[in-house]
Amino acid sequence: MPVNLAAPVSLSPVAGIRLGIASAGIKKSGRRDLTLIELAPGSLVAGVFTQNRFCAAPVTLCRRHLASGDIRALVINTGNANAGTGEDGLTRARQTCEAVAALLGCRPENVLPFSTGVILEPLPVDRILPALPAAQADLAADHWVEAAHAIMTTDIVAKGASRQLAIDGKTVTVTGIAKGSGMIHPNMATMLGYLATDAAVAPALMQRLVKDVADVSFNCVTVDGDTSTNHSFVLVATGQAGNAEIADAAGADYAALRDALEAVAVELAQAMARDGEGATKFMTIEVAGGRDVAECKQIAYAVARSPLVKTAFFASDPNLGRILAAIGYAGVADLDVDALKVYLGNVLVAENGGRAASYTEAAGAAVMKEAEITVRVALNRGSVNATVWTCDFSYDYVKINAEYRT
Amino acid sequence: MPVNLAAPVSLSPVAGIRLGIASAGIKKSGRRDLTLIELAPGSLVAGVFTQNRFCAAPVTLCRRHLASGDIRALVINTGNANAGTGEDGLTRARQTCEAVAALLGCRPENVLPFSTGVILEPLPVDRILPALPAAQADLAADHWVEAAHAIMTTDIVAKGASRQLAIDGKTVTVTGIAKGSGMIHPNMATMLGYLATDAAVAPALMQRLVKDVADVSFNCVTVDGDTSTNHSFVLVATGQAGNAEIADAAGADYAALRDALEAVAVELAQAMARDGEGATKFMTIEVAGGRDVAECKQIAYAVARSPLVKTAFFASDPNLGRILAAIGYAGVADLDVDALKVYLGNVLVAENGGRAASYTEAAGAAVMKEAEITVRVALNRGSVNATVWTCDFSYDYVKINAEYRT
Repeated sequence: MPVNLAAPVSLSPVAGIRLGIASAGIKKSGRRDLTLIELAPGSLVAGVFTQNRFCAAPVTLCRRHLASGDIRALVINTGNANAGTGEDGLTRARQTCEAVAALLGCRPENVLPFSTGVILEPLPVDRILPALPAAQADLAADHWVEAAHAIMTTDIVAKGASRQLAIDGKTVTVTGIAKGSGMIHPNMATMLGYLATDAAVAPALMQRLVKDVADVSFNCVTVDGDTSTNHSFVLVATGQAGNAEIADAAGADYAALRDALEAVAVELAQAMARDGEGATKFMTIEVAGGRDVAECKQIAYAVARSPLVKTAFFASDPNLGRILAAIGYAGVADLDVDALKVYLGNVLVAENGGRAASYTEAAGAAVMKEAEITVRVALNRGSVNATVWTCDFSYDYVKINAEYRT
Repeated sequence: MPVNLAAPVSLSPVAGIRLGIASAGIKKSGRRDLTLIELAPGSLVAGVFTQNRFCAAPVTLCRRHLASGDIRALVINTGNANAGTGEDGLTRARQTCEAVAALLGCRPENVLPFSTGVILEPLPVDRILPALPAAQADLAADHWVEAAHAIMTTDIVAKGASRQLAIDGKTVTVTGIAKGSGMIHPNMATMLGYLATDAAVAPALMQRLVKDVADVSFNCVTVDGDTSTNHSFVLVATGQAGNAEIADAAGADYAALRDALEAVAVELAQAMARDGEGATKFMTIEVAGGRDVAECKQIAYAVARSPLVKTAFFASDPNLGRILAAIGYAGVADLDVDALKVYLGNVLVAENGGRAASYTEAAGAAVMKEAEITVRVALNRGSVNATVWTCDFSYDYVKINAEYRT
């Protein structure tokens, strides 16, 4: 069961954006599985995408269409990833863009396609194209919550968040939705994530902004260590809030907007771990005192990915030697294990290369009973920190993934 | 349940080696958990060990003692890994060596200690030392099968194999035992493995020989991707077979002995995957046509480690897109996914970046029902191959590791 996670009750509309949902019957008949997001003219879009070499056809098209500029719509289907589908997959993704363009009166290059679901099966465009008019008819500014539901795959809880802030005397809105919850491992935007704001931002800053936000949010979460073929994270700025265009990346307005975007993105990224497949615990792995972010993340991910660590957390068993083992094999070649300290919650577990004298099994067991647990590793060799979120590894993870296609 | 794996009924004695087992009550009272292996004077020993930075105290001592030369005994306990135990752990491992040395009339530096079991808990020398005389009293040349049982942790089936061959007109024996079956992931000897031969080998060749053998056996297996703190693989050559010392690494005798050692080591390494925690399937991942071994192993391990691939195999579900995804994220940056082919058994699954036209779900499902399955990836970019063995990921993996300490 998801850990302390509730679906959003309401999400703030973003001026310039309308969303429509329809049922295409892609995997299950009746399921609302097709989402159309219409962007007002002049909206800016930037994205980061999976580095998986078997990237999905829609990811290839997104990269091409973003390079060509003007984006007017996003179209998202769940139930089929259109990945591992070769040339035929590109053709089908292009057909979807063409159909959306025909409906909205724009060019196919103005449409970004996204797919999530089973890999290696042909995208059923014969079912998607006929459902697009219904999605168009459903377009409304306040359909963010519905869209958050419509993009889910194995997610149990829909994921969305909003913030509002003042920039240049104007109210600026940030709203985001995302889906997990398996095949989740960065590097670069993880899963499908959509973040939108009505702020006016200089085009030259958009790519930097989306990368800044991804690096501290979606690039800090893992469920199973599997980097999907379809990871996409897209930032839309419609420019309709009325603020003077943010053009200085060193300025206070940029920082304020970035902070709000980050807050939403972090909430969504954490929601992915809270709703990780089969999750019963939400784990935060903090690695402090490293020489650079790379080594901190390397150690944090080794702990967060370890099936042995994750099953121990599932069992609420303070079998904490497994954490030490993961730190040890993380690949930091000159790591001095005698210099580091490991904490479970506030309990010092290990120092001087072994179990802390003050540690007791009872103290460890008390922390392990919590639903949200922080593991902190103090490397004591530098001043850099990194944090990764993950979940435990339960019977239900096996069940969900053994039965996924049935 | 282990996949097509039976415990050895008999193992050939190796001239110059005697083994004795005792019950020290380390973790469970009555369990035969302490093994002493006595080596005749003049035996040569070489080993490869975990690269985990949190390496266990006995691994540290093994490295030191091997550097000092003459080895007369190995002492192995199960039930406690003596890892993550700092200076105190070294002291306790040293105490064990001292006690063995006193019994056998040698120096503590002539003893190699090995431990396997729970990490982060103090080694109970108060129980081990009193049990050593019983192990000594039990010393016999034909106790290999008993030793194979005594070194097990979560293993269900004991692992051992023997070969005999003629070298220089003399009969040479090779016998090995090993234990898995969780926290199994190379790099360098995985788990505990002991290989012994009575062949006479030049001291200068021993380290090369153990590395040659490890690279094609124990360094080709993964269960859960976790590299243990205690991996140790040791080769003993007693020199009592009467052959002229093998001193030429390019000669036929070296090759013949290496092949026999490899055959035993491969059988043991595969046994670890067959008996991997919770295993119901034995999987062989062959990557062919790569530019170098590193990239072949990188891809093979990405597939072998993926929880999504492993759960699909557990379910006998040909959800083969997960294999493509793992290939894609393995980290081979310039991989051309349109050029590679993926086979499940003899069934061509993917080519030209997508599903093969000839592939049918029925053909994939038929292979997935087998207990032993080979996944073959033909990269078509070079002439190098690599193979990795692993197992699937079942409910029982979670059960075993959630309940390990209870």
